[in-house]
Amino acid sequence: MGQCIQPAVFGATGYSGFELVRLLARHEGTKKPLLLGRNGDSSYKDLSEVYPQIAGNGGYPFESFSWKRMKQAGVDVLFLATPHEFSRELVPAAVARGFRVIDLSGAWRLKNACNRAVYGFKDVDQNAAAKLDQEAVYGLPELRAEEIKQAMLLANPGCYPTSVILALAPWIRAGYVDVAHGVICDSKSGVSGAGKAATAKTHFVEVDGDFAAYNVFGHRHTGEMLEQLGLDGGSLQFTPHLLPIPRGILSTIYVKLAHTIGADELEQSLHNFYAGKPWVRVFGAAQLPQIKFSRGTNYCDIGFSLSPDGTRAVLVSCIDNLLKGAAGQAVQNMNLMFEFDEKAGLQ
Amino acid sequence: MGQCIQPAVFGATGYSGFELVRLLARHEGTKKPLLLGRNGDSSYKDLSEVYPQIAGNGGYPFESFSWKRMKQAGVDVLFLATPHEFSRELVPAAVARGFRVIDLSGAWRLKNACNRAVYGFKDVDQNAAAKLDQEAVYGLPELRAEEIKQAMLLANPGCYPTSVILALAPWIRAGYVDVAHGVICDSKSGVSGAGKAATAKTHFVEVDGDFAAYNVFGHRHTGEMLEQLGLDGGSLQFTPHLLPIPRGILSTIYVKLAHTIGADELEQSLHNFYAGKPWVRVFGAAQLPQIKFSRGTNYCDIGFSLSPDGTRAVLVSCIDNLLKGAAGQAVQNMNLMFEFDEKAGLQ
Amino acid sequence: MGQCIQPAVFGATGYSGFELVRLLARHEGTKKPLLLGRNGDSSYKDLSEVYPQIAGNGGYPFESFSWKRMKQAGVDVLFLATPHEFSRELVPAAVARGFRVIDLSGAWRLKNACNRAVYGFKDVDQNAAAKLDQEAVYGLPELRAEEIKQAMLLANPGCYPTSVILALAPWIRAGYVDVAHGVICDSKSGVSGAGKAATAKTHFVEVDGDFAAYNVFGHRHTGEMLEQLGLDGGSLQFTPHLLPIPRGILSTIYVKLAHTIGADELEQSLHNFYAGKPWVRVFGAAQLPQIKFSRGTNYCDIGFSLSPDGTRAVLVSCIDNLLKGAAGQAVQNMNLMFEFDEKAGLQ
Amino acid sequence: MGQCIQPAVFGATGYSGFELVRLLARHEGTKKPLLLGRNGDSSYKDLSEVYPQIAGNGGYPFESFSWKRMKQAGVDVLFLATPHEFSRELVPAAVARGFRVIDLSGAWRLKNACNRAVYGFKDVDQNAAAKLDQEAVYGLPELRAEEIKQAMLLANPGCYPTSVILALAPWIRAGYVDVAHGVICDSKSGVSGAGKAATAKTHFVEVDGDFAAYNVFGHRHTGEMLEQLGLDGGSLQFTPHLLPIPRGILSTIYVKLAHTIGADELEQSLHNFYAGKPWVRVFGAAQLPQIKFSRGTNYCDIGFSLSPDGTRAVLVSCIDNLLKGAAGQAVQNMNLMFEFDEKAGLQ
Repeated sequence: MGQCIQPAVFGATGYSGFELVRLLARHEGTKKPLLLGRNGDSSYKDLSEVYPQIAGNGGYPFESFSWKRMKQAGVDVLFLATPHEFSRELVPAAVARGFRVIDLSGAWRLKNACNRAVYGFKDVDQNAAAKLDQEAVYGLPELRAEEIKQAMLLANPGCYPTSVILALAPWIRAGYVDVAHGVICDSKSGVSGAGKAATAKTHFVEVDGDFAAYNVFGHRHTGEMLEQLGLDGGSLQFTPHLLPIPRGILSTIYVKLAHTIGADELEQSLHNFYAGKPWVRVFGAAQLPQIKFSRGTNYCDIGFSLSPDGTRAVLVSCIDNLLKGAAGQAVQNMNLMFEFDEKAGLQ
Repeated sequence: MGQCIQPAVFGATGYSGFELVRLLARHEGTKKPLLLGRNGDSSYKDLSEVYPQIAGNGGYPFESFSWKRMKQAGVDVLFLATPHEFSRELVPAAVARGFRVIDLSGAWRLKNACNRAVYGFKDVDQNAAAKLDQEAVYGLPELRAEEIKQAMLLANPGCYPTSVILALAPWIRAGYVDVAHGVICDSKSGVSGAGKAATAKTHFVEVDGDFAAYNVFGHRHTGEMLEQLGLDGGSLQFTPHLLPIPRGILSTIYVKLAHTIGADELEQSLHNFYAGKPWVRVFGAAQLPQIKFSRGTNYCDIGFSLSPDGTRAVLVSCIDNLLKGAAGQAVQNMNLMFEFDEKAGLQ
Repeated sequence: MGQCIQPAVFGATGYSGFELVRLLARHEGTKKPLLLGRNGDSSYKDLSEVYPQIAGNGGYPFESFSWKRMKQAGVDVLFLATPHEFSRELVPAAVARGFRVIDLSGAWRLKNACNRAVYGFKDVDQNAAAKLDQEAVYGLPELRAEEIKQAMLLANPGCYPTSVILALAPWIRAGYVDVAHGVICDSKSGVSGAGKAATAKTHFVEVDGDFAAYNVFGHRHTGEMLEQLGLDGGSLQFTPHLLPIPRGILSTIYVKLAHTIGADELEQSLHNFYAGKPWVRVFGAAQLPQIKFSRGTNYCDIGFSLSPDGTRAVLVSCIDNLLKGAAGQAVQNMNLMFEFDEKAGLQ
Repeated sequence: MGQCIQPAVFGATGYSGFELVRLLARHEGTKKPLLLGRNGDSSYKDLSEVYPQIAGNGGYPFESFSWKRMKQAGVDVLFLATPHEFSRELVPAAVARGFRVIDLSGAWRLKNACNRAVYGFKDVDQNAAAKLDQEAVYGLPELRAEEIKQAMLLANPGCYPTSVILALAPWIRAGYVDVAHGVICDSKSGVSGAGKAATAKTHFVEVDGDFAAYNVFGHRHTGEMLEQLGLDGGSLQFTPHLLPIPRGILSTIYVKLAHTIGADELEQSLHNFYAGKPWVRVFGAAQLPQIKFSRGTNYCDIGFSLSPDGTRAVLVSCIDNLLKGAAGQAVQNMNLMFEFDEKAGLQ
């Protein structure tokens, strides 16, 4: 596959957007990304003003967005690292014009209207939105590679759901989990997950040395987990926490086993499920993953412990929320959509 | 109560021991503590060599331990902030000589021999040890104030158990919790909980930016929780994690309710249980505690969230592991044992 | 000294203001402080809404400010932990009404109009302001105790100047420093020094793991150092840096000695200068202070190293920027102004 | 240049050694590095046991060191990330056998015997050592590219000297600096600079929230700065500090200018000096570098501020101590020695 495609990125100043630009800049199958800003929203001329980290590579200028500019530049794929409201508004027009879209926001991830209701989307053209809601492909490559390859609109998964779904999917599909008993997902995320906005909750003095749970029983990522795992509301409980670190997610997941299963079989089922999947590392029963193992990588690491009586297990999964939980997974999806090697640009 | 008692501290160089000295130094009912080291173990002459923080207050010299010196100094209470093996060895002799002991180690906390087995104690005089195992009082003041007042040997609770037991006791005693379903305690602790020994696991570069679970299904604090809450092994699951912060514990506790109970009743039961208890703050359903709220204090903070369908609840409790989880609770126990105000020296 | 005075605090929601309230709440010579907010600026009813840390002590309600309320409450001293513009506006009226003021802002610290110019004050009544500029007492207790006792308007020193002036004053006054050669003050401060406002510069993800110099050759605290040390502009160079920690300042100060002086004499001069001063600890030549030694205390710690050839020295001083660098020093000043023990409420 | 060389790494378990392996693993001009351990020193079989971060790439097994194995494997370059005593012992034998060596320790950096004395080397064959002391090339590529290309024994610079020398060399060589007045280098480093050994000084609880100066007037990196900048002892003063971050160095450097020079000329001289040098970024007078800009990269970033009166300047330089300060610079040197592109494997 020798093509070299032209990506465009909307929202490069945010943490996920910046990671995306860094990945695309190193990707051998892509041209330098076109960085888009809204008309009149030209507070910056070049991304290096916001992130001097990338100075010295010839510059990453912002351009004003227009469909004309998009066509002129020959954009093959449009990445949105923007608020979900913005995505609900822009995507229908983009798809109508034939642009393939990879959306990192929560705008198009949910199929179930009840789950989607928590976002409170206000769509101008409700029919178009409803159609796209169903056509959008949930971009978890380890579960939906074939659909992703064909996707016109790819909904890049949330960070928490990526860590939870990848850990649980193998055992739930194998019938190992007593789902009726209830699965508990106790997740912890670094601060970049809260975005780049400066708020009281992201102030260094408030966060450093602290730790807190938030949105208990009410986080909107819960719907993604339920839909992708085929569970109903009462059977999965998700509690997010804020870690005083810049990046990384660890999910501690508690399951009751449907029947007695040995650690070997449990481990083997994970290995089988992820055979040939380059971005999941199964640590198995011998060692639990830690956030630092996957920090700065696109890996999802999965390990577990089995209770001495063999009736319960604790799964632990880790990702870098900005990579496998956002920009890295978006590039992995682009790789599938444009027939690159799934690992391209991510090592 | 106008007495002024003489405390002695064994193990002042560790984190809990140092906090203890700081508290005792400010306590108006105690003389300057006698700091004890083992004979020949005189690497330091004064505590300010280890902790220059306390320079400028006239010095805290170490003295070699001997029973003679203990009597001569008129020691009223002996605090042990030493390894549990050391405590198993020293305590029988101390109690036989009539010294009241507050032991911060895990040596005397467990009544059940099976639970105690994980420590692998090797007692010289097994009869004396067995007798003391039963006589020792588990020093959680909010649950056992009357016994504590009379205690000869006080076993100061573990840090994790303090955070878990105080959160769960009110609802379990009220019959609100479906114990058979299983209670899950997902706890997170700062690094001082791992002690002052320099190891690969406490190296700054290894810990900073990281987060990890450890000892899943195997932490020895589990026995304390089971015994104090009156539960059997299968009904409580405890998973500790290491937070990249110096101090503080947050426990996220998942319970299924035995029947439908309103948030108001749940909150009221906590308020009732802790009425008149100065070191527990009930945050209730309105706000969840965070580690920074209780850091540097002797408080245990407790809050909760109720699921929308009213069938499940998540309790969150926070303590400072070196204060309410160790030295602060030890002083609180001393206050009860010597008829001081329960708040003395802790504000 | 048996009086019990009534303090009022304007600006309790900021970091310095909150520390001040905590100190006053424990001070045995003061009543519970009156917390003042501007009329209409009633976003909070109680300080525990902003800082749940202090929950459980009966509440710290905010009241609307008015001179009438000030008189009715019998306020003896008004603390301002507010922006300096606000202080320039309020103080003339307060002093005119006979209230003694301790101002933690930079509004009244500078005697020299050129130095003051960097603040760009816009005074309505320029005569009144000019008069107060001269009457205000620079509240560094180790240097100006007698003036402080009489002060009507006390200008509490800046955090950086406190660390620099206390380190340099003894040797400069003793004629030990070759001032003409130039003194270099390389200072490093924790993030709380930047205030509680959430900005890109205080975002956890931006600060954690980073370190930076700022305002080189242009920080407005330089004027305080020059005035209090009696130096002219070219002879002292000050460079502040932002440390990724919540609190604490360390200043590394480079001096050329005026002539050869032994380490013993240099150390003795520090001891002599600070004899009887409870809040300066001289570490001398044997050990350099570190931020953690004084964190959470009102101490200024001072140590130094002498070059092998005896011609140059490096002074290192440390303070907690919120205590000796702000609220603690304000209370120390109050202690002098109202004839309390200088250590009262600060241990 | 189409060759593919075989590197060997001694000391891969340390922080610099691990970074080196990561860089070499991605370098397109090198085969998978041979990881060497001492005979009998086989506590680990594979590097992924120490750093699970690199799991999933086929393994990095350790092999016992022997000259026979070195030859059999066709080693082209031997990297030493080992203690300097070890390097003093091994290097003469390696060079005698014709192996080109890149040594990351301080063993061979100093030409001047007085400077070298601080290390206290005990060489068995003093003649051989003396000869290598002179033949060794100080591997700062921006200053000595031609020598490096021919080097048999390359002494990779210390982390602090890299940050200081690169900042000062252009202006000192241009005669802009009043060297007689004295240059002051106030440097701050992350904890990985202290190595991987677990000590009281690297314990998380001791480091987090702290900051300290150390080895004032006595750090052994001073000699490298003096020799490479052609200065005598009294004219440069170096003070290192420990930052509570994992990696990165910032040096704040104070110079008196030899005569009045405009900011433009000062900036231009930096640009001229580093024209064509891919791993130095000149930020100039407009913006000072921060640690996060170069963290994770091989860049040395340099900026400065000029005093308003034009007589003095403050240079600020930043590097990642494990990359440009150690492993990255080692690879940059390897690139020059083996005629790769200077940027190869470092982006």
